Amino acid sequence: MLTGLKEINNGGITSAPGFKAAGISCGIKSGGKSDLALIASDTACEVGAAFTTNQIKAAPVKLSIQHVRRGTCKAIIANSGCANACTGVQGISDAKAMVEAVAGELKIARRDTLVCSTGPISTFLPMTKLLKGIPQLVQKADVKSGKKAAEAIMTTDTFSKEFAITLPIDGKRVTIGGIAKGAGMIHPNMATMLSFITTDALIDKVTLQKCTLNAVEETFNRISVDGDTSTNDSIIVLANGLTENNKLRKGHAQVGRFQEALTYVMQKLARLIVADGEGITKVVEIQIQGAASTADAKKHAEAIACSALVKCSWAGGDPNWGRIMAALGYSGARVREELVDIFYDGLAATKGGLVAKTPLTKLKKITRKKTFTITIDLHLGKGRYNLLTNDFTEEYVRINLGE
Amino acid sequence: MLTGLKEINNGGITSAPGFKAAGISCGIKSGGKSDLALIASDTACEVGAAFTTNQIKAAPVKLSIQHVRRGTCKAIIANSGCANACTGVQGISDAKAMVEAVAGELKIARRDTLVCSTGPISTFLPMTKLLKGIPQLVQKADVKSGKKAAEAIMTTDTFSKEFAITLPIDGKRVTIGGIAKGAGMIHPNMATMLSFITTDALIDKVTLQKCTLNAVEETFNRISVDGDTSTNDSIIVLANGLTENNKLRKGHAQVGRFQEALTYVMQKLARLIVADGEGITKVVEIQIQGAASTADAKKHAEAIACSALVKCSWAGGDPNWGRIMAALGYSGARVREELVDIFYDGLAATKGGLVAKTPLTKLKKITRKKTFTITIDLHLGKGRYNLLTNDFTEEYVRINLGE
Repeated sequence: MLTGLKEINNGGITSAPGFKAAGISCGIKSGGKSDLALIASDTACEVGAAFTTNQIKAAPVKLSIQHVRRGTCKAIIANSGCANACTGVQGISDAKAMVEAVAGELKIARRDTLVCSTGPISTFLPMTKLLKGIPQLVQKADVKSGKKAAEAIMTTDTFSKEFAITLPIDGKRVTIGGIAKGAGMIHPNMATMLSFITTDALIDKVTLQKCTLNAVEETFNRISVDGDTSTNDSIIVLANGLTENNKLRKGHAQVGRFQEALTYVMQKLARLIVADGEGITKVVEIQIQGAASTADAKKHAEAIACSALVKCSWAGGDPNWGRIMAALGYSGARVREELVDIFYDGLAATKGGLVAKTPLTKLKKITRKKTFTITIDLHLGKGRYNLLTNDFTEEYVRINLGE
Repeated sequence: MLTGLKEINNGGITSAPGFKAAGISCGIKSGGKSDLALIASDTACEVGAAFTTNQIKAAPVKLSIQHVRRGTCKAIIANSGCANACTGVQGISDAKAMVEAVAGELKIARRDTLVCSTGPISTFLPMTKLLKGIPQLVQKADVKSGKKAAEAIMTTDTFSKEFAITLPIDGKRVTIGGIAKGAGMIHPNMATMLSFITTDALIDKVTLQKCTLNAVEETFNRISVDGDTSTNDSIIVLANGLTENNKLRKGHAQVGRFQEALTYVMQKLARLIVADGEGITKVVEIQIQGAASTADAKKHAEAIACSALVKCSWAGGDPNWGRIMAALGYSGARVREELVDIFYDGLAATKGGLVAKTPLTKLKKITRKKTFTITIDLHLGKGRYNLLTNDFTEEYVRINLGE
């Protein structure tokens, strides 16, 4: 734990001074559900960002990548209910129209505005409704509506995800807070649909981008719900510099503290995403150790996290280590059956590739809990990798029968 | 279709002359369910075989690999209800004891006996029950009990899988017939749990092995149920040579006919496995064309076949091509969004990466059928790959909650 770090009660995207937010229903979703979110900064922000590694990128992702490259930013407009993905030239033009409307209302440059969409792929945005909603959205933006923005980016999420902390950095009180949405199509690189984070730290662009990528690698890239990587994943960190600390940059002794704090916030949001995976009943941390290399450890962890059979056995509360052995065997990474140890919350289920002496009833008690850890030691080398995932239930299938 | 090829009504593992089979309940499974199978040949057979590519191999797989290397074979003993996998030295000793008991009863050499197991991983075989059952099993073996053997290797299969054909090769009437079991842990390399095939063709070992691997590559390696590769997959082809054709070997003009006929039989058995995948309601053929290479086409096909989201949408009868686009994008193979065409049973859902003009109602009619084909043209090159898979249902999850 970082010295002086404090979690902010009900903190979120507007906890850092200088940021406003809003969330409204503009009619993209039926039934008056909230579907349009705004995050706006009073001043220009440095931006750190990470976008989906999927080769098929949604129109708003393509546009935001360009705007991030161009420099600072002042606003993020995001909608749920439609991904604006696989929508071609029309999709790009719609994303640009969203940016133009928001920039016009806020009286800022278009390049200072980022845009994100989430929801079903392959349909076009209902632009008339959306553009009609934007003036109202901008008007409602204030420092109290962070939760409304968090709600407006939800798709199949069952609760909104917000988190914020403060800590002293370089003698100043720095705040970092964010929101996220997840639920389906969650798999490393990137492992989220959307997450927005704001901070009042003063930091240069290069350092912020580096800290963002490092934090993403340790957090959002280490969660897996269903092995599907979305076309729309975006993580955006805005830093407005209002704390007026000595600018965090290469060589500044406190960059490490900022890095740790940012990772801490992303970790919390990433955990909330896994805990709210579609249809899930259990959160499971997979800890691989003793792999031949880090790359091998990652392959083993992902094979387990993506195995439908393993994930179904968790849903059933069954400590089925045989299915884990099978996944290790086909992961593509090195394994020697006779060396494998598997532990559930520290209790050995498998020693040297064979059933261990722990009574099955004790293991079952663990796999019936809402969260547990499975540690696998391959005894081949020093490779380690942790991954957070969940079980696979009938409810997941029900949720995904249609769009 | 091969000239002169005829499907044998109710044909199977004992359709070829010279082969007997049996299936009994020895008590591995509860409730008197059939769990022990025997296939025996009157004379020594050449063997073609393919085993799981999983690094974690079950004890019987390890032993059978050794026996196949040593030469000809006369019998296969197989049990369901226990995989004898992840069972260490005890597992090897149990598999050897099965072989010894069968060889003793049949009065054949131990090295002429192959052994297979299927069922839950990580438990030990109940050897007392099993060894007690073997004399009875051997006694019951006859030319009429092929179906009983097919039933005895079933696990979560809902029907037994048998198929046989005859065709003239080299002026003789050759028979090829087989049985298979599948249901869960089905994914390419290898894509089956167990399949045994017998033929009376006269063929040398090298040619038989080559034909076996070629046929497996075109059939069992092109089906996927859940993306999990089992520890026990085994395909064994026995050829007793009773037809006394001029021996099929390198240079014999009719090797191609035998190859095609063997592939035909495996294709049928592979289709039966997909049609009986755990909890499935639909069989879907994925045809990739226009990929940058064959390897790329395979990656695209497998990404789609392993996508939980895509498979859930099939269960719901939803022609959700957006999820297919997302899978193409993260498959690791080349894709250019604006070039992708997607067809359902020949009707365009997507043209140039965008929604096509086919009415959604027409596409829904197709995705509500029990079988349909999805053709994807990437317009990048000449790479092609076909894969047979199925939908993903709540019932799959229910089946796999426990062992």
